[in-house]
Amino acid sequence: MDFIGEAQTSRGVTERRFDLKVDTEVVPGIVWTPENAEPGIRPLVLIGHGGSQHKRAPNVLALARRLVRHLGFAAAAIDGPLHGDRVPEGISVDELMQRSPEDTGRRFRAAREEWRETLTALKQLPEIGDGPTGYWGLSMGTVIGLPYVASEPRISAAVLGLMGIPADSRGEAARAVTCPVLFLVQWDDELIKRTDCLALFDTLGSKEKTMHVNPGLHSSVPAFEIKASEDHFAKYLKVDR
Amino acid sequence: MDFIGEAQTSRGVTERRFDLKVDTEVVPGIVWTPENAEPGIRPLVLIGHGGSQHKRAPNVLALARRLVRHLGFAAAAIDGPLHGDRVPEGISVDELMQRSPEDTGRRFRAAREEWRETLTALKQLPEIGDGPTGYWGLSMGTVIGLPYVASEPRISAAVLGLMGIPADSRGEAARAVTCPVLFLVQWDDELIKRTDCLALFDTLGSKEKTMHVNPGLHSSVPAFEIKASEDHFAKYLKVDR
Repeated sequence: MDFIGEAQTSRGVTERRFDLKVDTEVVPGIVWTPENAEPGIRPLVLIGHGGSQHKRAPNVLALARRLVRHLGFAAAAIDGPLHGDRVPEGISVDELMQRSPEDTGRRFRAAREEWRETLTALKQLPEIGDGPTGYWGLSMGTVIGLPYVASEPRISAAVLGLMGIPADSRGEAARAVTCPVLFLVQWDDELIKRTDCLALFDTLGSKEKTMHVNPGLHSSVPAFEIKASEDHFAKYLKVDR
Repeated sequence: MDFIGEAQTSRGVTERRFDLKVDTEVVPGIVWTPENAEPGIRPLVLIGHGGSQHKRAPNVLALARRLVRHLGFAAAAIDGPLHGDRVPEGISVDELMQRSPEDTGRRFRAAREEWRETLTALKQLPEIGDGPTGYWGLSMGTVIGLPYVASEPRISAAVLGLMGIPADSRGEAARAVTCPVLFLVQWDDELIKRTDCLALFDTLGSKEKTMHVNPGLHSSVPAFEIKASEDHFAKYLKVDR
């Protein structure tokens, strides 16, 4: 994990850019920690951005800062495949993803390994250590996050949503998720079918799962669900101090 | 409104039994207020109990006390038709309701007028006054509460749930509800069809509505949804002091 440039601090939150080599890819990321954080075990939330967003999209940054400011947690985000700093100049995310659907699919599947190695590297940081970890990701953040959370025993709470599976699918990744999940649905989602969202919630293997449904389009998740996300992590990512 | 017996106070919550004559019926109720409450405007939550429960069922009492203790609100509950103190000795609620389904239906429809007159009487109390009012009621509390809230302009926030309407019904009462609603669904409800619950949420006319879905049977609503109910009323029943 190579840190890029100087750490920046804003109202108690220190932000550091990093690059991590994973296989043949360089994965660009950011880690947020409390200013002057003492070494020690600290809960960490991994934040997976949505489609055509990036590791420092306004909603990612806002969530990261509130987790640090309100809870004293650490947070981290990486650019998804074909997103953010991984987009060459002169081409859009959409064009890039449409170039080769097969390659896009392969890269998305590889993203769970990028998260896994990012988490391993983050846990080496003295102010994070080997504490409880959560994952937050909606829409594309669930496309990548669902199979990641399903296959990552180090994740002990997740917020997922704005995504579905066909009601007749086997939903193997969803079934394999066992940590407590807050699942967010937009009732008038114009991109994801309502019945598919309900089927995904239904299929989640977690004993503790709760679904919050609000009216509105795909990207109109109300601000109070970000507060609910924070509460979910506060409840399940406890550190005995 | 006739108060019955002495007021009882427990850990800051004063509880008073009352009877209210509505048409030919005597409606038995309880009002909870902060101990030694000063006269003045105070938010009030009306609590409609579930089937075969009564005005002082454990979940009703617990919700009333937390609204008083945490928020300084007032709360009130009445026995539903054919329930609680309105059940003659020697017969069960179920037997009573099955005696004449037609009479039961008529009494349930009349219950909204009982709530209306109860609210009018409660607003005369100097420590409640004409402040913002909410309604909380699941299952039978929604059967009675939905048409009540739909026809009661003095209700400005509601928690409803554990009830549904057929997807092809007109849902006139649901459409007529316009206040902010928190709607609770138990995903494995053995009494109410899942699709009917979703149809009722879908049909609610409220612009601000949010649905919380949890795994489990009809009467297994998790305790954190009672906290969510409190938060809903705290958000929408504000008094400028």
